[in-house]
Amino acid sequence: SEVQVPLGVPCNGLASRPGCVPFPLRPYGVKKPYKEVIDICWGDAHSGGTKPLTFVRQVIAVCIYPELLQETTIAPDVKERARRLLRECPGGSVGKYCVCGIPFVQDGVCEFISKRDGGVPISPLHTGSPVQFVLKLLVHGKGLAQTGVLTPIPCYPTFVMGLTELGAAMVPYYLCEDDGWCLHVEELRRALATSRSHCNPRILYVINPGNPTGHVQSRESIEEVIRFAAEEELFIFADEVYQDMMYAEGSQFVSYKKVLFEMGPQYSNTVELASFHSVSKGIMGECGLRCGYVELVNLDPSVKQSVTSAFNTERNTAVIGQIALNIMVDPPKPGDPSYPTFSQETVEALPGTSFQAGSGGIYAYLRLDLPQKALLQAKEEGTDPDLMYCSRLLEEEGVCLVVGKEHGQQEGTYHIRICIGTTSTRLKEVLRRLKSFHLRFLNEFS
Amino acid sequence: SEVQVPLGVPCNGLASRPGCVPFPLRPYGVKKPYKEVIDICWGDAHSGGTKPLTFVRQVIAVCIYPELLQETTIAPDVKERARRLLRECPGGSVGKYCVCGIPFVQDGVCEFISKRDGGVPISPLHTGSPVQFVLKLLVHGKGLAQTGVLTPIPCYPTFVMGLTELGAAMVPYYLCEDDGWCLHVEELRRALATSRSHCNPRILYVINPGNPTGHVQSRESIEEVIRFAAEEELFIFADEVYQDMMYAEGSQFVSYKKVLFEMGPQYSNTVELASFHSVSKGIMGECGLRCGYVELVNLDPSVKQSVTSAFNTERNTAVIGQIALNIMVDPPKPGDPSYPTFSQETVEALPGTSFQAGSGGIYAYLRLDLPQKALLQAKEEGTDPDLMYCSRLLEEEGVCLVVGKEHGQQEGTYHIRICIGTTSTRLKEVLRRLKSFHLRFLNEFS
Repeated sequence: SEVQVPLGVPCNGLASRPGCVPFPLRPYGVKKPYKEVIDICWGDAHSGGTKPLTFVRQVIAVCIYPELLQETTIAPDVKERARRLLRECPGGSVGKYCVCGIPFVQDGVCEFISKRDGGVPISPLHTGSPVQFVLKLLVHGKGLAQTGVLTPIPCYPTFVMGLTELGAAMVPYYLCEDDGWCLHVEELRRALATSRSHCNPRILYVINPGNPTGHVQSRESIEEVIRFAAEEELFIFADEVYQDMMYAEGSQFVSYKKVLFEMGPQYSNTVELASFHSVSKGIMGECGLRCGYVELVNLDPSVKQSVTSAFNTERNTAVIGQIALNIMVDPPKPGDPSYPTFSQETVEALPGTSFQAGSGGIYAYLRLDLPQKALLQAKEEGTDPDLMYCSRLLEEEGVCLVVGKEHGQQEGTYHIRICIGTTSTRLKEVLRRLKSFHLRFLNEFS
Repeated sequence: SEVQVPLGVPCNGLASRPGCVPFPLRPYGVKKPYKEVIDICWGDAHSGGTKPLTFVRQVIAVCIYPELLQETTIAPDVKERARRLLRECPGGSVGKYCVCGIPFVQDGVCEFISKRDGGVPISPLHTGSPVQFVLKLLVHGKGLAQTGVLTPIPCYPTFVMGLTELGAAMVPYYLCEDDGWCLHVEELRRALATSRSHCNPRILYVINPGNPTGHVQSRESIEEVIRFAAEEELFIFADEVYQDMMYAEGSQFVSYKKVLFEMGPQYSNTVELASFHSVSKGIMGECGLRCGYVELVNLDPSVKQSVTSAFNTERNTAVIGQIALNIMVDPPKPGDPSYPTFSQETVEALPGTSFQAGSGGIYAYLRLDLPQKALLQAKEEGTDPDLMYCSRLLEEEGVCLVVGKEHGQQEGTYHIRICIGTTSTRLKEVLRRLKSFHLRFLNEFS
């Protein structure tokens, strides 16, 4: 299966290495007015200078190298957690195989969900790298039988690439930019109706808070989506990995699971739902540790069996990721020795309210109103206006961000995505350069 | 895609948890003469009590928690390695995304291969979890066009499960037990000819040293296999993850890559070869860190493009695994402060020569000569003789090992696999219990 790699997925400085797809850069060796390229593309917090949380790293370090249990500089709650986790590893080593995830970690996830959702019942859980994994089990068929996945536009490109790789039909539904990137059920209905002529739409993918839009769904909006999924017998894929990143005033995260159960048995006993969370996002931002979980509600028994078997045969859960997951769902509490540092670090990690456009998540998705002359210039260069804008921004100011084209956008509109999950110093520098460039750009094409 | 989970894949004590496939155990609560069940099934060194290597764990701990750079108890070469690796992580954090692997780690792998193979040229490399990944890109088609994979019997069951999951046709070729589990080319030829009636055989999977057989291929045997692959235009999948585990006297590991290049351009410019290695095995045994590499020789340009794209879009390399890989290919050297400990630990980790049957790898695959009465008893119980033997062994002596049935075996022969990559104390206890049981078993059915 050939995979289409879109432009603009830079490999963190690996542009010249074989096997990596570079952002389209001009030749090397040309002097630039900036000293450093700032890569603000990805939701990769640590690359962007966000510091890891001390408690997370101390617990993992002790699990990796238990001699550290002797260190007097390490707090007792760190040692206690590490000891507890090591007891779950036969041989006392994180170097063991981990087939079904660590039971103690799964129990912690159950408690976390139960607390978050006010005690609604827990459905079967799996830990590891579940999004692509669960999708793979549901996607099949060709032609009219090909599984269709309703996908928001704009969306992050790796999700769409994943669908292509699995042979699913991507069924785009557009989020309404004029209404703050709201999800409108009429648009879902339109997309579904259109898709039936070429595939079998079975999955409804939602991401809340949004990527790249930063939009947070209200309870009413979630109810509407659930009613729609029930009517049309769609499987809801709720990507909720940004649930901890709420920053607009009055904005609150409510899970699909909670809403589903509060809508009564007519829905809570029937609608199929997968809800995802991950250590890569949130206050932790540990993208390199590779772990998350999925909760699977109302799975068809035959699918349930496949999912269970498949998770059992994978054998590939990284134990360090399991440890990070445990801390994500059960962080230090007031009164714990590590709490003061933890609490200070997590406040600093929150991105502030620099952008009013979104109300959650770690991205700002900005619309570019480009002058007519700029559009003509792009046409002449045989490129897209947003790609031209971003290439020039990179060349002239050394700021690398994501071209809206990659997320999908309404015909004739142009966007850029900035990851705001970074330090405020870095973000200020990005905005300074962006402003300087933008004014120059407008001036040139006015 | 429904996955068949064979019996006997125990989930390290998770038998009672939902979502795990238990070894078929009798009811709980029955008193047993042993205090502890010894699980000697898997090549999971640390679960079996093998201690992690100090240098590996110290470097990782420092990378995870760089405050440890201040510790005076940590050796300078550990700190130097950790600093070097952290320089490769933008933001100085192992919590970053790692798309194409870490270039510095890849360079280290290149040097390792070059040194191992006496300087033959290096082909493109990919790091991460490559076996299933590369297979996925090569397997396609249905009916007569279905990709066939020549697979040794006996073989470890997860490989066969992987083939089933990908929709490949498993084409068994039998290793010759009477000739010390040698791979005979006539048997490959027979298997290939037979397979053409139902699939399109394209891949030849070899594992050297063998799992479960422990057999090590000679240079002559490898040359024969390469000539056969060249004639029949087969892609060689050389699973060489046990290359560091050589223990029989006079036995020496030679890589497929080295032999291929020494056979001259007629072969070295044409035969497609993938060679795999992993931190899960060898002296390190870090199964929980999930990292390995594949070197891809003479790939068809169209496949090469797909492989590169697919590795680039995966985004899922765990950074900690990359660090372990770096140490695997570049361990402490004589003169380094960490060398004395490292050298002592690795000598202790070697399993000794308790088994003459194999000459490499970490398994002993033992043949059971079962009395006729035992075969009849199994028939009466509606089970297989080797499964009956292993179930009783587990019940009566608390030793859990792998039933030969799962690896495949010639009709009418019966085997068990023991992982010998464990501590000598543990291994002695296993052999004591096994002997006691075996004599009782023979007595009962004589």
